[in-house]
Amino acid sequence: MHRFFAAPSDIGAEIIQLSQGDSVHIRALRLRPSEYFIVCDGHGTDYICRLGKHDGGSVAEIMETVPSLGEPSFDCAVFIAFSKGAKLDIAVQKSVELGACRIILFPSERGEKADMKKIPRLQRIALEAAKQSGRGIVPAIMVEDTFGSAATYAASADFPLFLYECESETTLRSTLVDYSTGQSVSIFTGSEGGFTDREADIAKSSGMTSVTLGKRILRCETAPIAALAAVMYHTGNL
Amino acid sequence: MHRFFAAPSDIGAEIIQLSQGDSVHIRALRLRPSEYFIVCDGHGTDYICRLGKHDGGSVAEIMETVPSLGEPSFDCAVFIAFSKGAKLDIAVQKSVELGACRIILFPSERGEKADMKKIPRLQRIALEAAKQSGRGIVPAIMVEDTFGSAATYAASADFPLFLYECESETTLRSTLVDYSTGQSVSIFTGSEGGFTDREADIAKSSGMTSVTLGKRILRCETAPIAALAAVMYHTGNL
Repeated sequence: MHRFFAAPSDIGAEIIQLSQGDSVHIRALRLRPSEYFIVCDGHGTDYICRLGKHDGGSVAEIMETVPSLGEPSFDCAVFIAFSKGAKLDIAVQKSVELGACRIILFPSERGEKADMKKIPRLQRIALEAAKQSGRGIVPAIMVEDTFGSAATYAASADFPLFLYECESETTLRSTLVDYSTGQSVSIFTGSEGGFTDREADIAKSSGMTSVTLGKRILRCETAPIAALAAVMYHTGNL
Repeated sequence: MHRFFAAPSDIGAEIIQLSQGDSVHIRALRLRPSEYFIVCDGHGTDYICRLGKHDGGSVAEIMETVPSLGEPSFDCAVFIAFSKGAKLDIAVQKSVELGACRIILFPSERGEKADMKKIPRLQRIALEAAKQSGRGIVPAIMVEDTFGSAATYAASADFPLFLYECESETTLRSTLVDYSTGQSVSIFTGSEGGFTDREADIAKSSGMTSVTLGKRILRCETAPIAALAAVMYHTGNL
């Protein structure tokens, strides 16, 4: 079923006020009266709807209310260093599909400077990925101004995983073996060229666990996707 | 260290004949005499080399011979339905990074027709990904002419996994729980729109196990990446 998101303030007891964009999109789908679509409130509730007959078709009539099924059983934040080109787009899109609850961008020595102009575009990519994959929330795209503040934020999770290519001992598996259902995870990943020694020191002293993703060197956009897939697999969410 | 591949026939006891492209590339890197690079034979052996002084720099002098470290401990083939646009590029690149031993493309009812013109480009993407990620082989890009022959080929693995969005019972985890070290795996994945009932019947009667990747709907290029990451994680290769 096609999926849309609406602000809770636009959701009434019987009808939902659709945004202009969604209303145009739904009419373009030329759904038959018997064909339903989903409007999600972005807070874990799905409304099974059909297009309303009044207001020029800009409202949805609620037929049934059900919990969103697309949310994982735990909170997993993905921290990604600012980098060039389409790498951020891919990392954000796939992280949302795989179940990240929010994505936090941060500057790093070998990456790009923080660029707030990228945020609206990445938030749109997150919205589209959330619609397509059936998420119950639209993960927020957030920015931390410094590497240090990002590290401190990431370290507040129960399992803060610092993906570090110079780590050779501690694997993701050996770390997650202590995972208990419901604990939160953060995945912290660098730009092309990885992290400097200084950044690794900050990350570890913040309380993150430095982990390797094995013997192959993954591209900067592949590392968070692979780590997130592994964490979702480990926790029974894949 | 920079990494190149050479045909075994170009590898002598003391020197390796470099291809013209690699020779130009290595000279462009302006390596100092003390800086080494790797030439891999594509069969699991790495040669630590420096640029030779004779023949205009088109030979590499072998300094040390070591086994390639980038190969996983088991054979994992990834079967991907022909699809449009950059989706195949991303799926091939990431599959190589994550350790696929070969990639087999096949036609499907909801996908694109088999297109042999795409193969040279995808093989170049595989070569670049193998260089970048430190693989000991360059995974071959192969084509099966029919859905049925692809299904039969995939089913010959010890764990043939048919990624099917209509599967709701059997998970990847519940299937891999029976995995023993060294057993081969195949991952069989569709185009946008997934597989038809008829294709699912063929896949299952070929002997594949139909598995779900959970409650979120993954894009066609994300599904093989996520499944491969999970399989590599499960088998201790991530």
